[in-house]
Amino acid sequence: MRILFMGDVVGRSGRDALTARLPELRATLGAELVVVNGENASHGFGLAPDMARAFFTAGADVITLGNHAWDRKELIPYLETEPRVIRPANFPPGTPGHGAFVAVLADGRRALVVNVMGRLFMDPLDDPFRAVQAELAKHRMGTGGTIQAAVIDVHAEASSEKYAFGHSFDGMVSLVVGTHTHTPSADHQILPGGTAYMTDAGMCGDYDSVIGMQKGGAALRFWRKMPGEKLAPAEGEATLCGVFVETDDATGLARRVEPVRLGGRLSQAMPAA
Amino acid sequence: MRILFMGDVVGRSGRDALTARLPELRATLGAELVVVNGENASHGFGLAPDMARAFFTAGADVITLGNHAWDRKELIPYLETEPRVIRPANFPPGTPGHGAFVAVLADGRRALVVNVMGRLFMDPLDDPFRAVQAELAKHRMGTGGTIQAAVIDVHAEASSEKYAFGHSFDGMVSLVVGTHTHTPSADHQILPGGTAYMTDAGMCGDYDSVIGMQKGGAALRFWRKMPGEKLAPAEGEATLCGVFVETDDATGLARRVEPVRLGGRLSQAMPAA
Amino acid sequence: MRILFMGDVVGRSGRDALTARLPELRATLGAELVVVNGENASHGFGLAPDMARAFFTAGADVITLGNHAWDRKELIPYLETEPRVIRPANFPPGTPGHGAFVAVLADGRRALVVNVMGRLFMDPLDDPFRAVQAELAKHRMGTGGTIQAAVIDVHAEASSEKYAFGHSFDGMVSLVVGTHTHTPSADHQILPGGTAYMTDAGMCGDYDSVIGMQKGGAALRFWRKMPGEKLAPAEGEATLCGVFVETDDATGLARRVEPVRLGGRLSQAMPAA
Amino acid sequence: MRILFMGDVVGRSGRDALTARLPELRATLGAELVVVNGENASHGFGLAPDMARAFFTAGADVITLGNHAWDRKELIPYLETEPRVIRPANFPPGTPGHGAFVAVLADGRRALVVNVMGRLFMDPLDDPFRAVQAELAKHRMGTGGTIQAAVIDVHAEASSEKYAFGHSFDGMVSLVVGTHTHTPSADHQILPGGTAYMTDAGMCGDYDSVIGMQKGGAALRFWRKMPGEKLAPAEGEATLCGVFVETDDATGLARRVEPVRLGGRLSQAMPAA
Ligand SMILES: [Fe+2]
Ligand SMILES: [Fe+2]
Ligand SMILES: [Fe+2]
Ligand SMILES: [Fe+2]
Ligand SMILES: [Fe+2]
Ligand SMILES: [Fe+2]
Ligand SMILES: [Fe+2]
Ligand SMILES: [Fe+2]
Repeated sequence: MRILFMGDVVGRSGRDALTARLPELRATLGAELVVVNGENASHGFGLAPDMARAFFTAGADVITLGNHAWDRKELIPYLETEPRVIRPANFPPGTPGHGAFVAVLADGRRALVVNVMGRLFMDPLDDPFRAVQAELAKHRMGTGGTIQAAVIDVHAEASSEKYAFGHSFDGMVSLVVGTHTHTPSADHQILPGGTAYMTDAGMCGDYDSVIGMQKGGAALRFWRKMPGEKLAPAEGEATLCGVFVETDDATGLARRVEPVRLGGRLSQAMPAA
Repeated sequence: MRILFMGDVVGRSGRDALTARLPELRATLGAELVVVNGENASHGFGLAPDMARAFFTAGADVITLGNHAWDRKELIPYLETEPRVIRPANFPPGTPGHGAFVAVLADGRRALVVNVMGRLFMDPLDDPFRAVQAELAKHRMGTGGTIQAAVIDVHAEASSEKYAFGHSFDGMVSLVVGTHTHTPSADHQILPGGTAYMTDAGMCGDYDSVIGMQKGGAALRFWRKMPGEKLAPAEGEATLCGVFVETDDATGLARRVEPVRLGGRLSQAMPAA
Repeated sequence: MRILFMGDVVGRSGRDALTARLPELRATLGAELVVVNGENASHGFGLAPDMARAFFTAGADVITLGNHAWDRKELIPYLETEPRVIRPANFPPGTPGHGAFVAVLADGRRALVVNVMGRLFMDPLDDPFRAVQAELAKHRMGTGGTIQAAVIDVHAEASSEKYAFGHSFDGMVSLVVGTHTHTPSADHQILPGGTAYMTDAGMCGDYDSVIGMQKGGAALRFWRKMPGEKLAPAEGEATLCGVFVETDDATGLARRVEPVRLGGRLSQAMPAA
Repeated sequence: MRILFMGDVVGRSGRDALTARLPELRATLGAELVVVNGENASHGFGLAPDMARAFFTAGADVITLGNHAWDRKELIPYLETEPRVIRPANFPPGTPGHGAFVAVLADGRRALVVNVMGRLFMDPLDDPFRAVQAELAKHRMGTGGTIQAAVIDVHAEASSEKYAFGHSFDGMVSLVVGTHTHTPSADHQILPGGTAYMTDAGMCGDYDSVIGMQKGGAALRFWRKMPGEKLAPAEGEATLCGVFVETDDATGLARRVEPVRLGGRLSQAMPAA
């Protein structure tokens, strides 16, 4: 299966770049499953239903979230009707929405996507490792299994926790990819057990910024410890950052993993088709 | 000036790779200033004086540290006699050692190196922004100035704090490079004011690990919240991770910035010579 | 039921005071259930089995722990054989020991004791609120119930989390008492639903100290951000700090709650017998 | 000097109780210096200028703040004109307002009040220990000195940091008192060097609450990790919590220290006049 995962979309700059370029990117890469992290789409804070719809129209199959899941309240009822938008699976029982979704491809193959949030330097949610374990227990991956691929979006701050995720589920899923730092890592690799791994997919946003937000005000916050101007997303051209994985449907494991960086200020990276 | 910065060296695997390959790497790149972050050289925790000497012999000009600065106590007296090893500048007044060093090249050009520690999700040291500002106030960069280049090693957890550093000193220094996450970022760029920036240089260590430490025990720590086996560095072949910058001596600002990833599991990256 | 709860016993000073004075204290108050938090008994870090035995001999019925539960490794096998020593219930499944114990009084009445750890500013364990809820679901409190009293030791840093505990279980348990800050609070009260509450029981240790540890070295840690001398418990006379509660066996709810402060530097407090 | 310090005033309940009862309390105790922490007066978040004026009218001489200093923006210009309202001294240089104030009593005696914020589990401001040290360096305490008393309000989360403060300045100031946890401690004592100490003064607010805020919504935040109703201050009768100290003007050191708890749900405490 050819899987494309795009990191946190930030603000209008990120949304515009994603909706403009995803159709062609999907076609060029022959991507069969496209997952997009949308937690910062709405002015940096949350995701509005119409933005989710625009992402689906542009070619996303599944949208994941993170600590900003609830910033736009309209998303809460929308989650109940739109299972393709998932929030971290390790919120407590009773939380609206779902933490996993099984996408069915046109040809009938199936791919599990799980969103989970780390706890190091973040809000103490339920155990994200056991949450993933519980989702995986519902499936068998590979030929004749209930799924042919599995993607885990680990929305987390600490690189140590993300690597611990990668190794804990190495050989059990297709891809463990981090989000949340808004910084693409250059450590994409296939782990020894066959799982593709990348510490952070990076963001889809303007990199002349402080992780997507206008640099003046965001930097001042570190100098002056006072409330300043409201933070707003930077408005320069976005770099679309993500990762492309090709898996073996027989096992669900990865054959190759390559970064995607398209447009904007960062060095460009495009997998061979 | 041609500047090579290498990220946190972790354990024997990292040390061996660095001392074996730095001489050739320095020659190939024509690097005139080599800075190495050594805070994890000693079994993952701290730096011993003989390791520092080996790094100098292999071609390092300056060694920086971080939150593990004091893990090997022998380093404390050594810092007083070896100014080329610097610890974060924002430790409180009275702390042994120094937070900055001016390296003098063979041809007389001078380069300031400052080490500083972030505070977000880390120990609350003194303000790292004002610490860098104070070091820079002692110098004028460029032709006829007291320095021709300036490198800031921002040892920090949060990508937001690192970007805030980059933008705060954009146009004032040659390079702002992060360390500490042990994960190379793919966001190297020249900021609008002319400063080269990279969120994290990555580590010099084995990437089949949890940020350099053996993956079994390190991952278990996230599953079981109990003291387990001692953490020990992974022993597979290290990837040497860093960043190469070429500056204009007239201004001290960057002309190009490129990542370095050499050996081990990660995708290889080598600047053109 | 007459219940005495004593806060974190710190080091030799705390142990000596507790074992010397608990027999008389128990007798004076007519306490029928005595719970002691022992997580810092061993030089400030953990609890050794022989110390637990000494506490039982002196009159403790149940010993609770906290974040220092595993500092003395000998305790781990001991927990399997001694159910009267409990560790926080919200450690992950598979953790040695148990998080709750039902003490049976001489006359057959039964009291549930649960130990749980907060997560705000602490290690992200499992949800402590649901952990308590799960323990309570196993019992019915009051006349004819499976228990006649229930004590919850909330080992936590933040006063907000402790108050949230108190109110969440108000009317369902006899006492919610905090530990961990080593500072007795003066806010003991019976909440509107009938549960006795006190944010922190305080420690059994020397208060001429930094929360039980020798003040010189402990204070220096805040001034100098370097490894200094090893921390060691202060050795002055301990104040035994705790709380006394009298409940109605018919409901398990509290009739009165009063602080205990005995010996050492703090103002003395002793409930009327 | 007879000094009364009142902890964080929370919302209307706290304000009403303070303004109603402070005149009599001041008179009863013969207090010559009254300091009030006002950081939560305005609906739990910040202090409005008219509330400050009401506190002065009711008998406050100095008002201190904390992490909520800037929640009401109108306070920022007010701080420039009203030096009796102070914010933590360890904000960075350039921050509006001042971190210390010298109150002059009717008979000419002078008392220094310093407000400072801890850093453990809080925003990493400048070093609070050196900030206090710098303020004290401007004065000599005692007969013939520039001040006859000195009060330090340590607005901090961790009891360890507060005790470290107490011991660091023991013998140099009249009183080190903590604020911010909104929980009165029962560990008031005169430290060996003569400084009165109390880990937390407690709040002036309704104790049938989660540290002053309505208990339903505040507790739910720990159960559900979602945005719920807005937090609002609890509206029951406040307990006024604080500490009373009597000093020797010749040395500035403490002769006695006693808690104050007046009204509301908590056990009442009133120093002998
Ligand atoms: Fe996020
Ligand atoms: Fe994000
Ligand atoms: Fe490191
Ligand atoms: Fe580090
Ligand atoms: Fe403790
Ligand atoms: Fe503890
Ligand atoms: Fe506060
Ligand atoms: Fe407060």
